[in-house]
Amino acid sequence: MYKITVTTANRTELKDITFDVNRLVERENIKDGICVLYLPHTTAALVINENYDPSVKNDIMGWLGRNIPSTGNYSHLEGNADAHIKSSIVGNSLILIVENGRIMLGKWQGIFLAEFDGPRTREVWVKFISESRR
Amino acid sequence: MYKITVTTANRTELKDITFDVNRLVERENIKDGICVLYLPHTTAALVINENYDPSVKNDIMGWLGRNIPSTGNYSHLEGNADAHIKSSIVGNSLILIVENGRIMLGKWQGIFLAEFDGPRTREVWVKFISESRR
Amino acid sequence: MYKITVTTANRTELKDITFDVNRLVERENIKDGICVLYLPHTTAALVINENYDPSVKNDIMGWLGRNIPSTGNYSHLEGNADAHIKSSIVGNSLILIVENGRIMLGKWQGIFLAEFDGPRTREVWVKFISESRR
Repeated sequence: MYKITVTTANRTELKDITFDVNRLVERENIKDGICVLYLPHTTAALVINENYDPSVKNDIMGWLGRNIPSTGNYSHLEGNADAHIKSSIVGNSLILIVENGRIMLGKWQGIFLAEFDGPRTREVWVKFISESRR
Repeated sequence: MYKITVTTANRTELKDITFDVNRLVERENIKDGICVLYLPHTTAALVINENYDPSVKNDIMGWLGRNIPSTGNYSHLEGNADAHIKSSIVGNSLILIVENGRIMLGKWQGIFLAEFDGPRTREVWVKFISESRR
Repeated sequence: MYKITVTTANRTELKDITFDVNRLVERENIKDGICVLYLPHTTAALVINENYDPSVKNDIMGWLGRNIPSTGNYSHLEGNADAHIKSSIVGNSLILIVENGRIMLGKWQGIFLAEFDGPRTREVWVKFISESRR
């Protein structure tokens, strides 16, 4: 298992980690199989979406902020109940395909850590499983 | 990695791809392990739910349409900001278990491509990982 | 593939299954790789979040209940359309990393079955894929 460290700068933020994941694949010389990204946090998430037009990021985080507001009738008293809910809805793991030494992504896709209770230093855990040779 | 091509006919649609995935498992003679489905698109998603009563599909797409409307105060100007948000919420990958040469699904479950910005021709990427022999 | 049986006591409930999953990893002497949890149901989900402060569970289920109400303008007539929608939003599978004979979880994380149409007896299917030896 490998660890990628990600530092966020704001309370909520979609941080592009595509480069970090690809660098790890290259450094470890992974050729073929699957790559599991796992986030060991309960107030952030992992998500894949467009990394070309930054307005897409704003719209995703904007919708989450309007529909899961930071203040409300919550019972968790740490002021981050919304972040726990967002994390549960978006999800804390991703599964990616690796072929010919690179992560297979669609043309417009990037890999993002979704920060919902920052700024913080986060870890992304990474596990590679190689295709079995027959 | 294999590719399944899926053609959608409407702007939003839950398209059942269970048959296509099962046919691939059979054709490639996959016996045991996991099957990863990955969608290389940012305005569609993959989801598992009931494929028996079609009203379930209507209710899922209806809820998404009412709660993530196609027009709103979005900054992405291509008219499909809602599709990007839906894709992030529902997710773009699935992981399935394969045993004895078939995808293990619950009695009422089907595998769906959720189209949020169609009609389009979509690809679903498929990767099989066999169980390691001990 | 292994099966874990989970009994729920209420219509909606987040039931902690961390102990059951860990016990299986130990019993089967799994050392290293990934663990796939798959739920063969269409009115429940699997989710990872905080299992320390129980108020977090209430806030997650509370948000889902308020935003995906049990009664509404649904076409599915079995009275559980909301459960199907919640299941599609939260997701029915999880992927976990196994190292040194244990599931790798963040400090505050637990594994939950989210019941949306209980009480019922549910199954969680579990598949382990070992890391390939090089």
